[in-house]
Order: sequence, then C-alpha cells, then structure tokens
Amino acid sequence: MTDQRFFTAGGPFALKKLAEISQAEIDPSADPESVFTDVAPLAAAGPRDITFLDNKRYVEAFSNSLAGACLVRPNMVPRAPKGMALLVTEEPYHGYARIARAFYGPPPLEPFMAHTASVDETATVSEDCRLEAGSVIGPGAIIGNRCHIGANTVVGPAVTIGDDCSIGPGASIFCCRIGARVITHPGVRIGQDGFGFALGPKGHIKVPQLGRVIIGDDVEIGANTTIDRGTGPDTVIGSGVKIDNLVQIGHNVRLGKGCVVVSLVGISGSTTFGDFVMIGGQAGFAGHLHIGDGAKIAAQSGVMRDIEAGASVGGSPAAPIREWLRGVAILERMAKKKNG
Amino acid sequence: MTDQRFFTAGGPFALKKLAEISQAEIDPSADPESVFTDVAPLAAAGPRDITFLDNKRYVEAFSNSLAGACLVRPNMVPRAPKGMALLVTEEPYHGYARIARAFYGPPPLEPFMAHTASVDETATVSEDCRLEAGSVIGPGAIIGNRCHIGANTVVGPAVTIGDDCSIGPGASIFCCRIGARVITHPGVRIGQDGFGFALGPKGHIKVPQLGRVIIGDDVEIGANTTIDRGTGPDTVIGSGVKIDNLVQIGHNVRLGKGCVVVSLVGISGSTTFGDFVMIGGQAGFAGHLHIGDGAKIAAQSGVMRDIEAGASVGGSPAAPIREWLRGVAILERMAKKKNG
Amino acid sequence: MTDQRFFTAGGPFALKKLAEISQAEIDPSADPESVFTDVAPLAAAGPRDITFLDNKRYVEAFSNSLAGACLVRPNMVPRAPKGMALLVTEEPYHGYARIARAFYGPPPLEPFMAHTASVDETATVSEDCRLEAGSVIGPGAIIGNRCHIGANTVVGPAVTIGDDCSIGPGASIFCCRIGARVITHPGVRIGQDGFGFALGPKGHIKVPQLGRVIIGDDVEIGANTTIDRGTGPDTVIGSGVKIDNLVQIGHNVRLGKGCVVVSLVGISGSTTFGDFVMIGGQAGFAGHLHIGDGAKIAAQSGVMRDIEAGASVGGSPAAPIREWLRGVAILERMAKKKNG
Repeated sequence: MTDQRFFTAGGPFALKKLAEISQAEIDPSADPESVFTDVAPLAAAGPRDITFLDNKRYVEAFSNSLAGACLVRPNMVPRAPKGMALLVTEEPYHGYARIARAFYGPPPLEPFMAHTASVDETATVSEDCRLEAGSVIGPGAIIGNRCHIGANTVVGPAVTIGDDCSIGPGASIFCCRIGARVITHPGVRIGQDGFGFALGPKGHIKVPQLGRVIIGDDVEIGANTTIDRGTGPDTVIGSGVKIDNLVQIGHNVRLGKGCVVVSLVGISGSTTFGDFVMIGGQAGFAGHLHIGDGAKIAAQSGVMRDIEAGASVGGSPAAPIREWLRGVAILERMAKKKNG
Repeated sequence: MTDQRFFTAGGPFALKKLAEISQAEIDPSADPESVFTDVAPLAAAGPRDITFLDNKRYVEAFSNSLAGACLVRPNMVPRAPKGMALLVTEEPYHGYARIARAFYGPPPLEPFMAHTASVDETATVSEDCRLEAGSVIGPGAIIGNRCHIGANTVVGPAVTIGDDCSIGPGASIFCCRIGARVITHPGVRIGQDGFGFALGPKGHIKVPQLGRVIIGDDVEIGANTTIDRGTGPDTVIGSGVKIDNLVQIGHNVRLGKGCVVVSLVGISGSTTFGDFVMIGGQAGFAGHLHIGDGAKIAAQSGVMRDIEAGASVGGSPAAPIREWLRGVAILERMAKKKNG
Repeated sequence: MTDQRFFTAGGPFALKKLAEISQAEIDPSADPESVFTDVAPLAAAGPRDITFLDNKRYVEAFSNSLAGACLVRPNMVPRAPKGMALLVTEEPYHGYARIARAFYGPPPLEPFMAHTASVDETATVSEDCRLEAGSVIGPGAIIGNRCHIGANTVVGPAVTIGDDCSIGPGASIFCCRIGARVITHPGVRIGQDGFGFALGPKGHIKVPQLGRVIIGDDVEIGANTTIDRGTGPDTVIGSGVKIDNLVQIGHNVRLGKGCVVVSLVGISGSTTFGDFVMIGGQAGFAGHLHIGDGAKIAAQSGVMRDIEAGASVGGSPAAPIREWLRGVAILERMAKKKNG
C-alpha cells in the first residue's frame, strides 16, 4: 500500500474496468465485478491490490503473492496462486503503467504564485500556472498553460515553455524552447554554454555559443542532467525522448523521436541520433557521429564510429555486440586456462 | 596551518590527551606533556602541529617533515625524523580522524530563520533549527532538532528529517524519510520520479513512481548525487552508508549498512546490496541484481550478474578480480609481442 | 542566423577587419571591402555571413555552402564554391573563435541587486556587480568588480571572487578563492567536504576537511560539476583550466595550467596534473597519482598509475595508447575468426 502522506489514490475500479484500461483480457476464472483499491508490488500486494509480473526473476514471488489481481503473460497463467484474478496480456508492464496512471494520475494543478517568486514584467505567464517559492522568470519568457515551475528554478530571458509542463525545483533553463507536456526533474541545467574552445598550447580561446536548445513534446529529463545549447546550430531533443539522471548532452547533439538515454551517459558535440535509439547507462559517444534509427548501445559502451540503424553494439571501443561478447568470452577462457 | 577565515580550531591539546583521543600509544621518546595547537598535512606541518603517515607513498615526506607530532604504524617508527613526537597505532588515519574532529568539531548550530525562507504553516520545524535564505519547507514536513537547512534548498511535502541533520544548499528532497545525523551535500536530488517507462516502438508510457526514499542514520550523501524514489517498494539507504558526489541511485535500490559508493557510480533499478559493500568510482550496475555483504567492486566495473558476499570483481563486464587482471595482462603481452 | 531573442550581434565588419581579427590572410580573389553581418554554421550561412571549415567531415557542406565568407586552411581553398570570400589560415577554428567574439562579446554588465538577494552585512560586494534574484552572499565574502552572481546561487562565508567573474545560477561556492575572469556554469558545487572517511568494518569515521579550493584566472567550470575542498592541503585549479559538465574533482587534486577536462571525468583525491593535460570524457583516475605535462588521456580511460609528461594513454586499466589499440585489434580479430 502506498504511503498516503505522499500519494493519493483514485479508484476503486472493478476488474472489468481495469481490463479495459490495461487493454488486457480477463482470465475466465476471475470475477469481472470484483473491485480493487490500489496498485502494489508483487511482494507487498494484498487481496484488494492489483500487481504485475513482467520479469522472470520474480515468478516465485508471483506464485507466493497475496495480491488480489495481477497482470501476466499467457504463459504465466498456470503459475498463479489460487484465487488470484488474472488480467492476461503480452505486455503486463504496459498494462500496469496504464492502471497505475488511472489510480495515480497527476494531481490537478492549483494555480499559485509564491510571494518570493520573481517574474519579470515583460514575461508572459499563463494565469493557471503554479510558480513555487523562489522561482525566477526572466524578461520576455513565455510560460504556457497549466505549467508548474518548481521552487528556486530559474527560467532565463526569452525562453518559451509549452502547455502542461512540469519544471522541477532547483533547475536553470536558458536559450531554450520547450514543447508541451515536458517533465524536467530537479536540478536540470539546460542551455548553458557548450564546451567550446579553440585549444592551443598557450591557452584556449572561448568560442561564443550562439545556438539554442529545442525540446519537443512529451520529453522527460532526469535530475541534474545537463544539456548545452548549440554553437550556432541548435541542440535538439526530439519528441517523446526520455533522459535519465546525470546525463551530459553536448552542443549541437540531435536526438530523434523516442530515444531513451540511461543515467551517466555522455554525448559529445554534434553527434546525431535517429529515432528510438536505446542508450545504456554510462555509455559515451565521441563527437560528430551519426547513430541510426533503433540502434541499441549497451551500458558503458565507448562509441567512436557511426552506428547503422538497428545495430546493437557494446564494449569500449564499441563493436557489434556479439563480436564484443565473443571477445570477452575468449579472454575469459584464456585467463582461466592460465590459472589452471 | 588551516585558513582561519574558514575554520576555527579548538584545543590546544597535550600529547597524552591526543593519545587518548586517537586510541594510540605514546612512543617512549616523546614527552606526554608537550602541547599541540593544530593538525596539518605532512608537508606543511610545523613544530606545534600533529600530522599522520598512512600511505607508503609519503614515507619520504614523513622523514623530512617538520611536524611536532605524528601518528604512525609501529614499523614506521625508525623512519621518523629526530625529535618528532610519535603516536603509534595500527590505524594512523583513524587516529588522525579522531584528533582532527577534536580540533575541528562541527561548530554549534545557531538557530535562525532567514526572512526569505518559506515554511508552510502545516510544517513542523524544531525551534533550534537553522533555515538559511531561500530555503523552502513544504506542507506537513517535519524537521527534527538542531537541523541545518541550506540556502535555496527545497524540502517537499510530508518529508521527515531526523535530529542533527545537515542538508546542504541548493538541494531538493521529496517523498523521503531521513534518519538522524545525516549529512547531504549541496545539490543532492532525492525522491524524484525514477526512470520508469513501459517502452514501446510508438512511444513510452510513464509509470507512476509510488514508493519513497528511506535513509537511515549517519548517512552522508555527496554533492549533486541523485537518488530516485521507489516504484512502489521504497529505495533504501542503510545506516552508515557514505555516498560520494555525482552518484546515480535508481528506484528500489537497497544499500545495506555501511556501504561506500565512490563518485559517478550508476546503480540501476531494483539492485540490492548487503552490508559494507565497497564500490569504486564510475562502476555501473545492471538492474535487479544482488550484491552480497562485503563485496568489493573495482572502479569502472560493469556489473551484470549477482556478486557473492566477500567477492572482489573488476572489468566490464565484471569478473572475479584476479581473472580480470590476468586477462588484462595476457592481452598486454600479446600487444607488446606484436610490436616486437 | 542567430536567434535575435537570445543573442545580439555587433558588427557589421568588412572582410579586411575580419582578417585582422582572425589573424588570417585574405584570399586574392576576395574583396577586402565586402561587408559581413553575422557568423553562421556552414549549412545555414548566407551571403552576408562568415563561417569556417575545420573538420574534414564537412568538406562537402563547405563546397555547397551559400556562405559569403569562410575561414579555411590553405589546402581547402580549391574546394571552395565560386564567389565565396576566403580567409586563409592554418587555424580556422581559432580564427572563427576570434571573429565570433567580435560579433558576440559578452554584453556589458548592468549593475543590479535583486530585492530577494541576501547579502550579509559583513560581505564586500563591488557596486558594479550584478546580483540576481535569490542569490546569497555570506559573511566576510569579497566579490570583485563587475561580477555577475546568478539567481539562487550561494556564495559562502569568507569566499573571495576576483574581478569580471560570472558565477552561474543555482550554484554553491564554499571555502574557496577564485581568480579573475572565471566563468562557472549553473549548478556547480565548489568547496564542500571531500569524501574523507577512515573506513572500518564497524563504521566509518568522518575526517574533517580543512583545506580550500583555489581557482586561478580564466578558468571555466561546467554545469553541475563538483569540486571538493582539500583535506588540509588545498584543491587547486590552475589558470586557464577548462572543465566540462558533470566532472568530479576530489580533495587535494591539483590541475596545472591550461588543463582540459571533458564531461563525466572522475579524479580521485590527491592526484596531481602538470600543465595542459587533456582528459577525455568519462576517464577516471585513482588517487595519489601524478600525470605529467601535456599528457593525453583518452575518453573512458581508467588511470591507475602515474603518467609521464607527453604520454598518450587509453583503456581501463590505461596503457600507452598504441598498445591499448593493438590489444583491442587483436581481440577483435580473434572474435571474428571464431565466428568464421
């Protein structure tokens, strides 16, 4: 059961409604009229909760779960404990996501402007926004409808933010245009100067950074992530991109639609990505590369060349993932022999 | 000598008192009544300072040091310069830590509430707390005795913080319960949404993150480190854990007691750790693993499997440390031969 | 063309003036009196813009560019499109940097103190400084002439900042002395306690951190980067050092003049660097090492030993770069054979 001090559940919902929400089938043994009041993890769920099984590691926890209902794949149905109501789907986690959102949608935004907020007189802030304590909106900035600006966050001059955005606390956003329904988490740093220097043995000349950061719709950006503005071209984050915490995105980088970037990844300047590229944690990219649509980059990869669409790579320097794993296995065997 | 603008020394202390504080033995050649006024590093210490020798790299600096007193291991006694008062112990660094704390304990907290601090009327803040400028305390939050809340730090709704905590400036803390004597450094981000999406080729569905972050006693968390809240289960940081700067801790991670996590480590969701696990810098962990008590993870390791208690691993993907180092040595030899 | 909402161009400039600024030669085919109004990237530049070609990847874009003028190396002159005015130099990027700075110098600082700024009565702030909303200046701090302190940034007690510095928003600076013309980007964390513990199986003793951070002149520090203060010795950042975003610099580290540190690098305590060391992204350094002048450390290197002046290393653990690349190539061939 979720902590009611932090989260307020909607519902309850009948199983038939949950099936509809989750786009799953009700197992014939279950009662479509039975009612559930909350979501919960497998191990903690009780008879009035609905949970899900997605990762094979947790089959045993599933078989021992006291959950009243569970989203499962068809092949897991026989492993269910007696009396558990099953919602059957090939995508239990997607189903769970939809149900959890039904129980715990974002609370309605209560418009507010803290007396310690600073809004420049030339900024345009929709009246239905919420500006927390210490937030700062610069000259000429435009904030769309129903936006939430976190405490002590700074929105710089002429920045535009679309409707229904949530900008977390303690952040700074400069030289940037943001689309609709974007969520940025605490401490993000968007639009500062990129790392641009003409290097030399007697000193380094700073190069003015004259581009912007353009962020699409439905983007999510993790805590303390940094996105530098372009040098002249823009840095572009495509719609639907999800970026984790502590990621570094250099100037002029372009991420296509739906890319997923896990924590502590570093992307050097001017590297571009197609759509739906998946990037594992702590991977790094040299500059001026192109990574094709749908490529998969394993965690801790060091990418030094262009990657074709659909390819999977791993290792540092990154190679096709099978080749990399084979190299790892060969070296492992040699090391073990040496030992024997 | 420390910079008096930043630090104020207690003391002075007689050598016999320093021996007692540091749990060390006075070398027979030293005068227990001799008095010392400060701590200092080997190279900078003068005749009224006490220093320590712990790392063999610095034996020469020790032999040339002008320090009046020094904590050393028994085997280093013969290398001491003439006239240096020695405190002999198997743990010179521990002894130094205790002595430095005697000279430089945390200054007493002067209660204060800045006029630019914002405290919700439903929050409970002990009167002996210190709230710096621009700090924000949300509805229903409870702050224990003698806590220090840094400037421009945001403590979210219903967060609880135990006694004698120091929460650094520019931070944000949400959906979290914190124990006693916890120190968090500037810019920490605790309790934001974890990176939870049901991924799909047409877009990614955000999964509500319904757990909390539970932090034990005597924890220290480094600057700009990010700790996401759980998805339903909690993210748990055990008592006595020490986390360095720029570390990413994903949702549902559990760190046992006394774990040490060096900078730029990334821990993926639902990975759990026993007690006193040591994690080197820039190591990464896949999700849903278990790392046993006392395991040692070398810097830059890429951990993709469970690790047994007491094991040492290195490399990416991580292997038993000897095997990894042997593989490295084999490849090095092959590369050199090729050259010859 | 740059976005006029964010950037205001100076100029225009005649080609002969641009040649003088950039220290380049005017190609004989060009008219020295022709006038240019802006800088722009190759692909976007129009007839009144000046651009540059530095990276061979972009030769085709150069040949197709509509730019009115371009900085190029002598060997690229024949590849220029007809009618493009060429400024010829061995260092086109340096020339571009100088020209871009002529068009887009930092705007003059308009002195200002926000009414939500908090300045301790014992602090000294030059009257020509600009203190943004929510900035906090602690007791005894000294801020030089023409400094810009970003919104919600905290400057701690007794910190000194030299002339013409720009301290970005959302940052915190403690126990620190900063030189002249230093730029720190948003969210930097300077001078907090280093990660200093005497580790033990029953718990870890915190060691007071009694040093400072000393930062030279003309240093630039990236967003959300963390620099811990020394333990007793100082942490020192030499003049002209450029540090990217999300870098961790441990206690007692010393960076010589002109070092360049790319994003997500981690440097453990007491490691010292000569002058003009180049450090690639995500590289890591063990503690207590010395890296000689002019060494080059490849991205993702794991440096566990001292590095000689002028050496180039790569890999984890780091080896001489040719040896490392040869090892990589050998393993790659073995993996491919196995496949065949």
